[in-house]
Parts: sequence; C-alpha cells; structure tokens
Amino acid sequence: MPSSQPPRSAHFADRLLARVRSLGHPLCLGLDPHLPLIPPLFRHENMEPHHPATAEHVVRFLCAVLERYEGHVAVVKPQVAFFEQMGASGFAALEKVIARARELDMLIVLDAKRGDIDSTAQAYAHSLAPESPLHSDAITVHPYLGRDSIEPFTHAAETYGGGVFVLVKTSNPGAADLQDLTCGGRRLFEHVARMLAPSCERLRGSCGWSSLGVVVGAHHTEDAIRIRQLLPHALFLVPGFGAQGADARAAVAGFVPGPSGREGGIVNSSRALLFPPGSHTDDLATWERAIDEARDRAIEALRAATRG
Amino acid sequence: MPSSQPPRSAHFADRLLARVRSLGHPLCLGLDPHLPLIPPLFRHENMEPHHPATAEHVVRFLCAVLERYEGHVAVVKPQVAFFEQMGASGFAALEKVIARARELDMLIVLDAKRGDIDSTAQAYAHSLAPESPLHSDAITVHPYLGRDSIEPFTHAAETYGGGVFVLVKTSNPGAADLQDLTCGGRRLFEHVARMLAPSCERLRGSCGWSSLGVVVGAHHTEDAIRIRQLLPHALFLVPGFGAQGADARAAVAGFVPGPSGREGGIVNSSRALLFPPGSHTDDLATWERAIDEARDRAIEALRAATRG
Repeated sequence: MPSSQPPRSAHFADRLLARVRSLGHPLCLGLDPHLPLIPPLFRHENMEPHHPATAEHVVRFLCAVLERYEGHVAVVKPQVAFFEQMGASGFAALEKVIARARELDMLIVLDAKRGDIDSTAQAYAHSLAPESPLHSDAITVHPYLGRDSIEPFTHAAETYGGGVFVLVKTSNPGAADLQDLTCGGRRLFEHVARMLAPSCERLRGSCGWSSLGVVVGAHHTEDAIRIRQLLPHALFLVPGFGAQGADARAAVAGFVPGPSGREGGIVNSSRALLFPPGSHTDDLATWERAIDEARDRAIEALRAATRG
Repeated sequence: MPSSQPPRSAHFADRLLARVRSLGHPLCLGLDPHLPLIPPLFRHENMEPHHPATAEHVVRFLCAVLERYEGHVAVVKPQVAFFEQMGASGFAALEKVIARARELDMLIVLDAKRGDIDSTAQAYAHSLAPESPLHSDAITVHPYLGRDSIEPFTHAAETYGGGVFVLVKTSNPGAADLQDLTCGGRRLFEHVARMLAPSCERLRGSCGWSSLGVVVGAHHTEDAIRIRQLLPHALFLVPGFGAQGADARAAVAGFVPGPSGREGGIVNSSRALLFPPGSHTDDLATWERAIDEARDRAIEALRAATRG
C-alpha cells in the first residue's frame, strides 16, 4: 500500500478531500463499460453480455484505462449496471476492477443506486465493509423510501469510514417529473435535502465536509446553489460533465472556496473519458494517446473552473 | 418444460394471472436468505457473506424450500441484496436459484429496486432478456428519476413479455417521509401512480391486467384503494404480509372481483415462509413439516381473503 494512503478506517470525506486537494481537481473517472463502444483493441468477436469471454475483456479494457489514470485522479465510479448485465461473471469482473483501482490508490464510489429497507438495505450497505468482495469507499442510494432506508447506509459509512451519496437532483430530463414537484412551498428535491441535513452534519470529518453526500446533476446550476444552502457540508457527486454536455463551470456551481480553490464535491465523466475521439482503434499507442488527451483536457477544464 | 407453461414470449400479466387463477391464491414466495437465520440443516461453520462456502449453502437452502413449493405457488421473488452481499459467488447462487425456480414452473420477480437512466437503465433491464444469466419475468424499479428512467424497463418488458413493478407506496415507517408529501393537492405517491398510468394502459394483456405493476405495502389499505382508482389495471406487488405483520385481508385491499375471486396482484411473504417456527433444526423431516405448515397457513389465509 503506498505510504500516501490514509488508513482504511479513516473518514471518507477526509480521505477524498486530501486526494482532491493534493491533485488540484475534482475529476471522478466513471467506469461505464458500454459493450458496443469498447474499442477493437480490447474486443473479442462477440461482445454480448452473456458471452463467457466478455467480462474478461471488460476487465482488460478498464484496467488499461485505470493505468493511464494512475496518479491523475482521486476517485473512480464503477456503474454496477454494466457489470450486473453479465451476471456472476460481471460481478467477478467488477471485483477485479475495484481491486485494481484500489492498488492504484484510487477511491471507489460504487454507482449502484440501491434503495431498500431494514436488513435488505444492510445487505446492500455491506459493500462498504472491508471484507466485502465489492469493497467500496462509497455507494449511491435512492431516497424514495425515506429516512429509515438511508440509515443502514449512513450507519455502515460510520462503521467502516465510508461514504454515501443520495440522489437529490439528477441530470436526466425526467428528473423534473417528481423532483421538481412543489410540496408545501418547497420542491421535492429540497425536501430530500432537508431530510438528509441532520445525518449530513453528524457525518462531518475534520476537513469540514460530510461523508453523507448528494448527487446533483451538472445542468442544474441554480438548484445546485439551493442544495448547497440546505446542505452546506455535503459533498456533491456531479454527473453530466463531458458526454452529457455540461461544461466544467456549470458542474462546480455548488462548490465553495476552500484552501486550494473551489471545492465541495467530485465531478464525474464516463463516456468522454472512456471512449474519446480517436480511441476506437486497435493500435495501442494511438489508443493511449487518445485516452491521455481526453484525461488531460477534462482535468485542465476542471482545474480552470475551480481555481481560487 | 411442463406443458402447463405458456411460451416464454407470452405477456407477463397473462402468464401470471393464469397461474394465480388456477392455484386460487396470490401468494408470492419471497427468497430473502438472511444468513444468520438459515437453519442448522443448511449451515456451514462460518456463514459470513464473504466465506467462499456460504453461497453454495444458500443455494441448497433455497432450492430445498423451492421444492416444498412445487405446484403450490405461481411466483417467487428473490431479493437481490442478500445475494449481492456475497459478490460474484452470490450472483452465481442467484443464477442457480432462478434456474431451479424456472424448472419448477415458477415465475421470477427480481426484487432489485433498480433505477437509473438511458443506457444504464437498459443494462439493468437486460435481466428481462431470455439470454440474461439472471433471466427474470419481472423486476422492481424506483421512480425517483422520473418517466424516462422507467421507459427502458417497460420497453424491455414489451420486447420480452416481461413485467415491471414500480415502487409507489412502501411498507416501512419512513415511507411517509416523501411518499405522503402533498404536492398541488395530491400526495407524492399519487403523482407517481398518475405518471405511470399511460404506460400501464399500454401494457395491458388479454387478461385485462397490465405488465406494468406497482409495489403497494400491505399496511396501507386506504392508499391501496386510492392507487387502485388511479391505476385500475396495474397488478399490485404487496410486501409486508406475514413477518411484517399485516393480515391477509389488508394485503388484498386493492384487489377487485375477478372470474375466480378477488384478484389484482400478488402478496409476498418472505421471512414467515423461509424461517417459520419449528424450522430452526437439523432434522430434515421436522424442517419439512415446519415449511409445509407455514406455506399451507399463508395460502389458506390468502384463499379466504380473496374468496369471491
């Protein structure tokens, strides 16, 4: 384990912020292995999810990407759906990818969007335990079932030094269907934020930020500012930067001044980093150049947007 | 494949209703393998989720239960969380349990409570495809991300003859935190029901019921009646019967008169069927008697509650 890595029991927000501040940018590398998009260099002849060779090729592809990001990124976010569609072999692939990212000193946010109650939620929250095969530093969670569906996750976060990101305002057009409904003078997503506030304060670390964070889509800059008012210490996980079209300045709308520039969350990009222009090739050097260029572009854009 | 089983491409609600009507009750067997509760007969010395032998013991336990239900139940509902906590070996166990239930002519509702957007939701919906290793007849889904997060699931349901159950009103105390908020004169769960109505009508089968159903907790009888008004053709998946304390009559509050008694959904029981009194034993005959008695009690209670 590199000496730069804090002990595993340390507070999630403290561990994350230490890395983000040291790198000087909040980029999160999203690991969404869309099978049809994987470049020729890493494909086999039949990349269907049910083909027994597919999962292993996904591992090779993602581990090759991870190696281009060593020392460049604080955190990665595997999207569980793309692994789950391959069944048990997909979960074996996910375990390998998580293990490799951990070796490369990256934190893991498991983008699972789980949400259930009681012992079922506890079973999902087990992914935060060091002995779990999916051992992750944080997990994403749905709010619809209410406070008692969030508690098993925050409890596991406190036990294991992990984190939780609850969906508050998402980046898709349909987000407005329910999240923007006005209930008693407040929109639904504001109610969700207020529901989380006490736990969010309880989970603050020595860096000032909380291990209970929220998902806030990059397109909703005014909503991000409103959520920041309601949850001054919640880390934002911001999807929608890059392929989904939002620019870096919009993505950090909910960030606030910190010791080394604006901070307060991580900004995820998946497709723009995994499948950039020029990367659909079977030539290794060409592929590496395309991946590195996309990485440096995203980092530079976020550095510029968060500069103090 | 037994001759009683309609072709796999048939409409989900039609397939389900044919079985429920023929058996004369709506019981759904919930497969929630709580590791600490598994009886001595099926345990090994260390039933932690990360122990490599645990998943195989879970398979033996659940397959033994499934065999006691052959010919007795239309549908089973595996709770993915309890498998996922075991990682890849847990998904391998889930694949085996699903395959065994299918051999025994039971339909599978995958209780995954997934919810995401675009291609990610499509990847989760892949579990409805016959070639998926997790091939299920229906899946449970979160509504918080809105209409466009439901569509990939209803689209897969239409393609494969599968079903979708969207969480509308859940059985936990925290359900009230968001689901009961009043937004423009209607509670949030009513907004969710109204959002689903057009798709629900589109997915109706020849039995009259829709393959787009809803989850409605057994304790909320008035809310169940309200949701039935808003969604006259949605099948209800009712959790909370049995161990969670609701009685059979409350569980079928949203059902309506049908050709052979009151119908309109399935009523799930997990813990009361998997871990009934007298089943914590290492004697096979004693265990079988306890499982059979719990099964017959639940079926009789639901038959009485749905009698025409």
